[in-house]
Amino acid sequence: MTTLTEEILAFNKARGWTEGNRDARNLAISVSLEASELLEHFQWMSGEQAIAKNREGIIEEASDVYIYLLQLADVAGFDLDEAAHSKIRKNALKYPVPAGEHE
Amino acid sequence: MTTLTEEILAFNKARGWTEGNRDARNLAISVSLEASELLEHFQWMSGEQAIAKNREGIIEEASDVYIYLLQLADVAGFDLDEAAHSKIRKNALKYPVPAGEHE
Amino acid sequence: MTTLTEEILAFNKARGWTEGNRDARNLAISVSLEASELLEHFQWMSGEQAIAKNREGIIEEASDVYIYLLQLADVAGFDLDEAAHSKIRKNALKYPVPAGEHE
Amino acid sequence: MTTLTEEILAFNKARGWTEGNRDARNLAISVSLEASELLEHFQWMSGEQAIAKNREGIIEEASDVYIYLLQLADVAGFDLDEAAHSKIRKNALKYPVPAGEHE
Repeated sequence: MTTLTEEILAFNKARGWTEGNRDARNLAISVSLEASELLEHFQWMSGEQAIAKNREGIIEEASDVYIYLLQLADVAGFDLDEAAHSKIRKNALKYPVPAGEHE
Repeated sequence: MTTLTEEILAFNKARGWTEGNRDARNLAISVSLEASELLEHFQWMSGEQAIAKNREGIIEEASDVYIYLLQLADVAGFDLDEAAHSKIRKNALKYPVPAGEHE
Repeated sequence: MTTLTEEILAFNKARGWTEGNRDARNLAISVSLEASELLEHFQWMSGEQAIAKNREGIIEEASDVYIYLLQLADVAGFDLDEAAHSKIRKNALKYPVPAGEHE
Repeated sequence: MTTLTEEILAFNKARGWTEGNRDARNLAISVSLEASELLEHFQWMSGEQAIAKNREGIIEEASDVYIYLLQLADVAGFDLDEAAHSKIRKNALKYPVPAGEHE
């Protein structure tokens, strides 16, 4: 368990948020909702404009996505960093490096 | 920059994915789309049922969300772990621990 | 009830889909998932490119969003067309027409 | 063009919203964002609880999804009701009625 996950779990426990926040479906919904709040910063503008206009909001919403993702990983019993490394290795087989290029 | 972010950037570079994948709006869209693919595993069933039925799929989609999130953090120039720690501190002020409980 | 809603309800009934499809939370999740499948057509390209490349897919996913939306309206007991008319009137108060322009 | 679509287009025109609101990618993003705002009403509760607690909010967000969907249909040049009828016919072939049941 990463230190960040431990911090989140302690945060929830101190507030008695130990039921709904341990339900994987609720957490998956929350990951998706926070991802939309992140995207909302880009609704009517380019990436550059959004970062110039509200970088702090983008950082906060990205954090919320990550915080729910770590809780989901904890409930489902996997390590998010390890999982991402595995996924990159799997993607490398799916999308081979074109001949003549180097990884 | 974390090792995982470096790995993702090297992956993209080796495949020539260095334009669309550096656009923050594209990345925010992709975070949201992958979050929906994660949620799709829970479409008609409970959290327990979804994990029992397709834990591998859930791990893969959660990884995809995380991989795009790290790229967005890199483009916008922030560290995702640090940002999450800050957000938890901010949440602690917003949601104080009820009297009589300990954090 | 619109004819389209009646058609959807008859479709579900004939297939015995009368439980999960009558749960408003399931329907709200499905609206969101289909909206993401719609957005997926625009993931790495402009609106014009997406329509040129896969107009049929866009039409199908937009239909899926609408079909779930009508089911949600039926479960929650409101008429979607009437609700949209009301929302436009409410928006008109929120965003008044600038002076010198005519609605 | 339906009367509702005409009403939306007149609303936008009166406010000079005739550029960003005619871009299909912007509209697909907005459909997805409004679908998430709809889902947000169901974040930590059942369908029944959400409807009891905030039926008006649900009706408004569902309307917003629909309003953007109609604009997307207009930009991409299709009729949403006709498209939904076609999709239901296509679904009927994909999911045949089980033997012994009647549609």
